[in-house]
Amino acid sequence: MKKVAIGVDIGGTNTAIGVVDQEGNVLVKNNIETPSHGDIDHYISDLASAIKEQIKSVKILNEEVEILGIGIGAPNGNYYNGTIEYAPNLSFQGVIHLVKLLRNHFPDMAALALTNDANAAAIGEMIYGGAKGMQNFVMFTLGTGVGSGLVVNGDLVYGSDGFAGECGHTTLVPGGRPCGCSALGHLEAYCSAPGMKRTAFELMAHYNANDSLLADKSYKELDSKMIYDAAVKGDKIALEVFEKTGAWLGQGLADTVHHLSPEAIFLFGGPTAAGDYIFKPTKENMEKHLLPIFKDKIPILPSKLKAGDAAIVGASALVWKELDKK
Amino acid sequence: MKKVAIGVDIGGTNTAIGVVDQEGNVLVKNNIETPSHGDIDHYISDLASAIKEQIKSVKILNEEVEILGIGIGAPNGNYYNGTIEYAPNLSFQGVIHLVKLLRNHFPDMAALALTNDANAAAIGEMIYGGAKGMQNFVMFTLGTGVGSGLVVNGDLVYGSDGFAGECGHTTLVPGGRPCGCSALGHLEAYCSAPGMKRTAFELMAHYNANDSLLADKSYKELDSKMIYDAAVKGDKIALEVFEKTGAWLGQGLADTVHHLSPEAIFLFGGPTAAGDYIFKPTKENMEKHLLPIFKDKIPILPSKLKAGDAAIVGASALVWKELDKK
Repeated sequence: MKKVAIGVDIGGTNTAIGVVDQEGNVLVKNNIETPSHGDIDHYISDLASAIKEQIKSVKILNEEVEILGIGIGAPNGNYYNGTIEYAPNLSFQGVIHLVKLLRNHFPDMAALALTNDANAAAIGEMIYGGAKGMQNFVMFTLGTGVGSGLVVNGDLVYGSDGFAGECGHTTLVPGGRPCGCSALGHLEAYCSAPGMKRTAFELMAHYNANDSLLADKSYKELDSKMIYDAAVKGDKIALEVFEKTGAWLGQGLADTVHHLSPEAIFLFGGPTAAGDYIFKPTKENMEKHLLPIFKDKIPILPSKLKAGDAAIVGASALVWKELDKK
Repeated sequence: MKKVAIGVDIGGTNTAIGVVDQEGNVLVKNNIETPSHGDIDHYISDLASAIKEQIKSVKILNEEVEILGIGIGAPNGNYYNGTIEYAPNLSFQGVIHLVKLLRNHFPDMAALALTNDANAAAIGEMIYGGAKGMQNFVMFTLGTGVGSGLVVNGDLVYGSDGFAGECGHTTLVPGGRPCGCSALGHLEAYCSAPGMKRTAFELMAHYNANDSLLADKSYKELDSKMIYDAAVKGDKIALEVFEKTGAWLGQGLADTVHHLSPEAIFLFGGPTAAGDYIFKPTKENMEKHLLPIFKDKIPILPSKLKAGDAAIVGASALVWKELDKK
């Protein structure tokens, strides 16, 4: 009997569904639209059908498969309540009791749990990735925003209300750049992919850098991959973007170390593909901010989750974690 | 049979020893010198004698007393190892195996544990104080330095090495004031009692404030109590010191909320005696930095531990916490 878990990743436009084995391999997967109509009952019915289809598909591959549960990663996902609450990028309004609604379609499923996408990534790292066997670590996911998942004594930190681990919204620069959440100077405004773009444009303006390889891109056009490509070619602006992003991220990670003293920090997401361009200044600057007792002992590591499947795989990991608690 | 615990608070110049009942009342207490000679064996022998004397004293008061353990709060105390490690304000060098050394004198004591002073205060708040029944809260201790104790799922956060919860060393101002630890811009450099003094002198210099009530004090003389007294009399500099200290502390507490989403935040220590002068700007400024999901739901409360006995009481609470784990 091969044991598997279903991972569901609810994004702003797409919902990805996959069946994952205990080693983190995606056996089958599919996508459905995350609708913009805002009708949750309609969506749940579509989602349940899509999940059932994936179960059929995996049973064609292997008749002896045992489905142990469904793990869901979603923006503003609340583990305690099984809810998605006021997610700004989804069409469903207010508080959505997703786990309860989905439970009606899967009454016998052993585990059915939901958390936010960054927490799911952290659990994925713990179950399948580089954090296997670690009891205390943190994961930062760098993308359109910056998410984080914090693990203390082997468990995700959910806090008093299920929303803990929002390290992307710690303040790096008092009175600094407006964040998407409307507060000033948050980490996300500096260390996300759009944050790097903002830094590039600030630097071009500062140096009046008409000769930069980035100078022929519009604000709308530029992305973090272009900044990386320019850095590889030795473009000074692009190189300084990475230096500054690393300085900010290092400052933020040091704050997290002073809170939790983790064994390691994992970074995940598009900007981390730049490797040493981002890891080196981040590490150097984190060290500058640390108390002596923490210096030179906390590695900053790239996530071992495969980029394409990480969201599904992370969500599925929630199932093993749940069953582990029983 | 009345059950009691012994609390030991090791400070830079004094070691306080007290016997505490399950309601947090100090039944008997005493002080010995924390020596400057650096001879740990000598000190342990003195400490063991002093503890035995307190046990005798409490048995004179009540023959039926049962001593359940010894809890110790110490600077750079490491709960995992029972050690004091490289404490800058103690004469003992390197790593001191305090619990092991003391165990030789108390082989039959049910619980014998050590942690740092801020963690001890947090456990004290949880066992005897305002955090009774809370599973997720944080405590900041404001004094010569700024310490913190973080509680997640009902347990102190010790991290991978026993040193977690050093929120006094998160960065508030990039490139800001030198902290005692030599890094720049840490919270402790702004929100400790000496931090408030630094702010007062910066403001007097900025405004050339010869008319301030604080203007006749030397740098060495001024303390946070004098700033409070001047604020009560309406002194503009003193009032602005509280506004600015609250702004900085609020920023730091918001970072902690984004990490842990606590049910409440407790403040302890000298500067908190100023009441609304410090609590009001702290709360207002914390709110400014928070994500909407955290706004208006996390109270900032004064510690309910009695100022004079808090260190002993906090240390003793470690005993109940230990026995609870068994």
